[in-house]
Amino acid sequence: MTTVSVAMIGGLIAVLYGAITSRQLLGLSPGDARMQDIAAAIQEGAKAYLGRQYTTIAIVGVAVAVVMAVTLGWLSTTAFVIGAVLSGVAGFVGMTISVRANVRTAEAARTSLQGGLTAAFRSGAVTGMLVAGLGLLSIAVLFWYLTGPGGRLPNDRGIVEALTALAFGASLISIFARLGGGIFTKAADVGADLVGKVEAGIPEDDPRNPAVIADNVGDNVGDCAGMAADLFETYVVTLGVTMVSIALLVRADPAELMQLMGLPLVIGAVCIVTSIIGTYAVRLGRGSIMGALYKGFWASALLSIPALYVATRWVLGDLSAMIGGAGFLDAGADALTLDPDPGSAASFTGMDLFWCMLVGLAVTALIVWITEYYTGTAYRPVKSIAKASETGHGTNVIQGLAISLEATALPTLVIVVAVVVAYQLAGIIGIAFAATAMLAQAGMVVALDAYGPVTDNAGGIAEMAGLPDEVRERTDALDAVGNTTKAVTKGYAIGSAGLAALVLFGAYTTDLRTYFPDVTVDFSLSNPYVIVGLLLGALLPYLFGAFGMTAVGRAAGAVVEEVRGQFRDNPGIMAGTSRPNYGRTVDLVTRAAIREMIVPSLLPVLSPIAVYFIVRAVAGQANGFAALGAMLLGVIVSGLFVALSMTSGGGAWDNAKKYIEDGNHGGKGSEAHKAAVTGDTVGDPYKDTAGPAVNPMIKITNIVALLLLAALAGG
Amino acid sequence: MTTVSVAMIGGLIAVLYGAITSRQLLGLSPGDARMQDIAAAIQEGAKAYLGRQYTTIAIVGVAVAVVMAVTLGWLSTTAFVIGAVLSGVAGFVGMTISVRANVRTAEAARTSLQGGLTAAFRSGAVTGMLVAGLGLLSIAVLFWYLTGPGGRLPNDRGIVEALTALAFGASLISIFARLGGGIFTKAADVGADLVGKVEAGIPEDDPRNPAVIADNVGDNVGDCAGMAADLFETYVVTLGVTMVSIALLVRADPAELMQLMGLPLVIGAVCIVTSIIGTYAVRLGRGSIMGALYKGFWASALLSIPALYVATRWVLGDLSAMIGGAGFLDAGADALTLDPDPGSAASFTGMDLFWCMLVGLAVTALIVWITEYYTGTAYRPVKSIAKASETGHGTNVIQGLAISLEATALPTLVIVVAVVVAYQLAGIIGIAFAATAMLAQAGMVVALDAYGPVTDNAGGIAEMAGLPDEVRERTDALDAVGNTTKAVTKGYAIGSAGLAALVLFGAYTTDLRTYFPDVTVDFSLSNPYVIVGLLLGALLPYLFGAFGMTAVGRAAGAVVEEVRGQFRDNPGIMAGTSRPNYGRTVDLVTRAAIREMIVPSLLPVLSPIAVYFIVRAVAGQANGFAALGAMLLGVIVSGLFVALSMTSGGGAWDNAKKYIEDGNHGGKGSEAHKAAVTGDTVGDPYKDTAGPAVNPMIKITNIVALLLLAALAGG
Repeated sequence: MTTVSVAMIGGLIAVLYGAITSRQLLGLSPGDARMQDIAAAIQEGAKAYLGRQYTTIAIVGVAVAVVMAVTLGWLSTTAFVIGAVLSGVAGFVGMTISVRANVRTAEAARTSLQGGLTAAFRSGAVTGMLVAGLGLLSIAVLFWYLTGPGGRLPNDRGIVEALTALAFGASLISIFARLGGGIFTKAADVGADLVGKVEAGIPEDDPRNPAVIADNVGDNVGDCAGMAADLFETYVVTLGVTMVSIALLVRADPAELMQLMGLPLVIGAVCIVTSIIGTYAVRLGRGSIMGALYKGFWASALLSIPALYVATRWVLGDLSAMIGGAGFLDAGADALTLDPDPGSAASFTGMDLFWCMLVGLAVTALIVWITEYYTGTAYRPVKSIAKASETGHGTNVIQGLAISLEATALPTLVIVVAVVVAYQLAGIIGIAFAATAMLAQAGMVVALDAYGPVTDNAGGIAEMAGLPDEVRERTDALDAVGNTTKAVTKGYAIGSAGLAALVLFGAYTTDLRTYFPDVTVDFSLSNPYVIVGLLLGALLPYLFGAFGMTAVGRAAGAVVEEVRGQFRDNPGIMAGTSRPNYGRTVDLVTRAAIREMIVPSLLPVLSPIAVYFIVRAVAGQANGFAALGAMLLGVIVSGLFVALSMTSGGGAWDNAKKYIEDGNHGGKGSEAHKAAVTGDTVGDPYKDTAGPAVNPMIKITNIVALLLLAALAGG
Repeated sequence: MTTVSVAMIGGLIAVLYGAITSRQLLGLSPGDARMQDIAAAIQEGAKAYLGRQYTTIAIVGVAVAVVMAVTLGWLSTTAFVIGAVLSGVAGFVGMTISVRANVRTAEAARTSLQGGLTAAFRSGAVTGMLVAGLGLLSIAVLFWYLTGPGGRLPNDRGIVEALTALAFGASLISIFARLGGGIFTKAADVGADLVGKVEAGIPEDDPRNPAVIADNVGDNVGDCAGMAADLFETYVVTLGVTMVSIALLVRADPAELMQLMGLPLVIGAVCIVTSIIGTYAVRLGRGSIMGALYKGFWASALLSIPALYVATRWVLGDLSAMIGGAGFLDAGADALTLDPDPGSAASFTGMDLFWCMLVGLAVTALIVWITEYYTGTAYRPVKSIAKASETGHGTNVIQGLAISLEATALPTLVIVVAVVVAYQLAGIIGIAFAATAMLAQAGMVVALDAYGPVTDNAGGIAEMAGLPDEVRERTDALDAVGNTTKAVTKGYAIGSAGLAALVLFGAYTTDLRTYFPDVTVDFSLSNPYVIVGLLLGALLPYLFGAFGMTAVGRAAGAVVEEVRGQFRDNPGIMAGTSRPNYGRTVDLVTRAAIREMIVPSLLPVLSPIAVYFIVRAVAGQANGFAALGAMLLGVIVSGLFVALSMTSGGGAWDNAKKYIEDGNHGGKGSEAHKAAVTGDTVGDPYKDTAGPAVNPMIKITNIVALLLLAALAGG
């Protein structure tokens, strides 16, 4: 059996798991008529939003596809379309399951906490396995077609470009979906809270609030569909760029290259299996809900260790043999092999690669642990924010900002150590394999994350349908851990981007040498155009964050005015005698989110092109390439910190509020609680709109640069 | 007359201006006995704090001096001590005038707005001229001594090291003073507001508030003394590194080098004169107060243009002649001249340098304009925050954060364009001269800034002494523009750091080649240790910001508890029958600020050393140098954005509150106003503690790296 067929089987197993588990889920009771009514309204809103979002993206996508067809040819264009469509499919199917699992989770929570947990987590697992499975399938099928029927060598330029274009398709959808979904969910959430909780004094998820359905729709289109697109993109980019790097950098005969390029695919396949096994380990037992979820995570992570060993051994055979022979990564390039990056490790063994994979697993585990520390209610950071709430809104926000700044330190150190260790073991290829092993856990990580919006919705449905208090208590307990699991996924995605940055930059420099062998580009830090590129790259996450935050603020303001208008025009709403117009609010948020997502999403697509052409006009082509390359690293150097601080800080603010609601510092309704609600509101767009969208933004900047090189060289 | 004697005369003129203006100021009426009483309490507190701060810094300074004496010799150590002592003197004298001008400003404001404006601005001008004058004198005297009686060539290693050590002395004081003063002022301010305005419901500066004197002391030790130390450091580093770069990079005979190295000194001298003339242009006329201050700024900036031309012409003679001859910046280095940076402009003329100076002036003017846009009440950003306050605390903070992120964009673009233009004109030397022309305006810029705390204090004294309402109205009007002028200085300081970064890095790489000619360091972005250095450098401003924010939060909390305790133990305070114990609060804040400043201040001193030794242990000396060099740029790439966003955002929040207090969105006491107060509180440590301290932090990291190289090479 070939590596590619193993990968395809792995991908199919994931899709099959999704299909079977979906059937099981849909077989659960969807509750009474009132619950089904509410769930139908959420389904309708989510479907309508995603429909319009995908239509808008399709317009942009078609325009991009036309440009690609002209500049890069049909192969890249086809790969681009595959990446885009499958990313959309993963998000859409995940959302479709999620909006059906919510009501079933609420119904199951009537009976037991375990029932609710299982329903919600299984729904998340469907999304998780689809993300990993479809991602793996897309790469494997493309690679199989091109090297098999297509008859190309594994390191043919066409394969490199097709894999890059596939990643571009996934990234383009991802940036729009992350940002559009993020704006939708937080505009609805913040707007509903401001006008409901703060002004009208009605509880969260009260059916009299006209924004309540929009809020629940937002959980699905933002935290489920948007997140799924993001992780699909991260998965495809990471595995793809690992294969591309092997093709570009490793000096070996085609058969050996074929094997080595298949290894990331096999890693993806075996980890899908360990993730599926892990999902069955999620059980309550005597521990906490978080503990139950962690059981699943740890089971799949620990099972991955032997699985990765076996996979590596099976693909590479003798793990102590040098890969690529003596000439591997040698500076003397021949027709087949491109110049290696200066400074790459001279050679490595299969065992070295296995150690690099363990580095990737260790990074994943450490990021989970650090995120838990910074966002969990049991530790200093969240407690310090809760304590600061006692002296008011201002000190709550000051402490939250302090924690958000601080939360960047440990993940950065972990990434730095991982880069150094993996590089010492196997050069840039080692870093690529560390990132691949990290992303191979995506099925499980996405499952943990996509569980969140389901429980959030379940709570909303329980409230709106007037289910007994203990049901709401159960869904609240399930929901509480969602803040941490959501923060974990974002730290994980951005952490992998930190690892992948050097690999992407390596691909850029190697491409540059291939396409423009006569241009000598000075990437040294003493070249001022490198500084210019670093500064402009570093600016992107700030500008992008500003757009995201402003969009949420503006759209939330529109929601407030819409809801105030409904209350004013129809006094029966507050009296509970007439039904608010939920659809109008959903529609308003839909239009706002679509409108606001376009300009910031195009920022990372157009900036690299603009920087290249402007600097080239001023200082020549070589400096144009230098500034563009530096921009790619500038965007990660600054984006890593912006994203980590926003996502961790936001999670900490949210849980500080929950910690106070648990009866600390005066509990619900106290002055400290009001201050904590302010912090939570501030954290919302931080953690769910601006912060997470930085990850696809970094990737898309890099991939656009790679495609620009190919286009400039004439396709 | 030599360039050095012109510089010394310029420096003496500035000091003389300071002495005469101080005498004029002290000749004004200090008001009635009650006012003098209050002023005496502020003087006492400020003196006590600065005394303890300088004692603590002295302990650190002596330890550092001992290390320097052992590793770098007596010359560097002496220069270090001179830089440290003069920085302390500038801050101390400025503060001494400021705490005497405050009460005189309040008294003068009894008669007229112009009277108050003149008193406050003249006080600021004393500080401004002392900063520029002492800075210029310290460099000029050192350079004169070493090239004259010392008999050294202008590009002798001893001179390079002595100038670097002088800058280090200034920087070390600066980081402690900026951070300690920043923590003091904001802990007192936030604490006083929280417990006074929010809890007890008494107005700002109410004499019943035990923290009110501490708050007023804070203005002087933070916004005056701390700021003065910061700008002194920026001045000395910028002029010093320009001279060092000429010594390291320009290939010319000693006499020519001596002239060219004297040019930055002459620029400093002539701009002191134009700044002094500018101070007399500050008059109210029919325009606004801001307009009156701008008159002074524009007068000195416009006068600088011909002055710079004349100075350049006088120093260099024929402005169209190539400087340094054919071999200038040639790669073939000889014994006298060091390897130039690759990519530097091949040669330049005096006229090119003059254009670079105009670039520096343009950057200054644009940063003033951009800062005015982002923090002035007449424009979209502040208005948008005020509008967002209508929907609550949360949306105020969200919009403020959005503005703070956005505010980084235009200054970054200005800096990028300036780097490119100056570099095209005259290579790295061109960038250095742009930065020098920028810093030559320091006298005027510091005057505008140091004016702020005086008016702030004057308002406090007017309130506490029960002066008529119209006096308080006048001081409030004077104070309102202080937010913008303070933000301007910070943008100016960090902007110049952005320009200087490349120059400092150039000095680092050149030093490296001199001291370690056998070590080939790969500064390319494809070296992973470069990425490691960039990431670790980028982390520093975040970690530093976290420390600063946490320190303010913690110290402010302590103030709240102290004040609550005084109210509880002595009910006569609120009744107005007994005097609160102001001294105890001042003492508490003093101890807290001193304690909290130490660890974060040592962070940028020790981090470069740690990074070098750790990376060297793992990956060899060359990679240690690469990581250290990259760290220097990482800290500016991230620090520029952190500092710009914090200082602009903080200013915008503050003025959004003032805009609402002017009667917009419901005015004082409305819900929008309460939300705006929260934003202002959040902005306080952003703009006055964490943000501004990033500038000295960047410099100190760079200078420590330069000294480390010298020390490693054996002095």
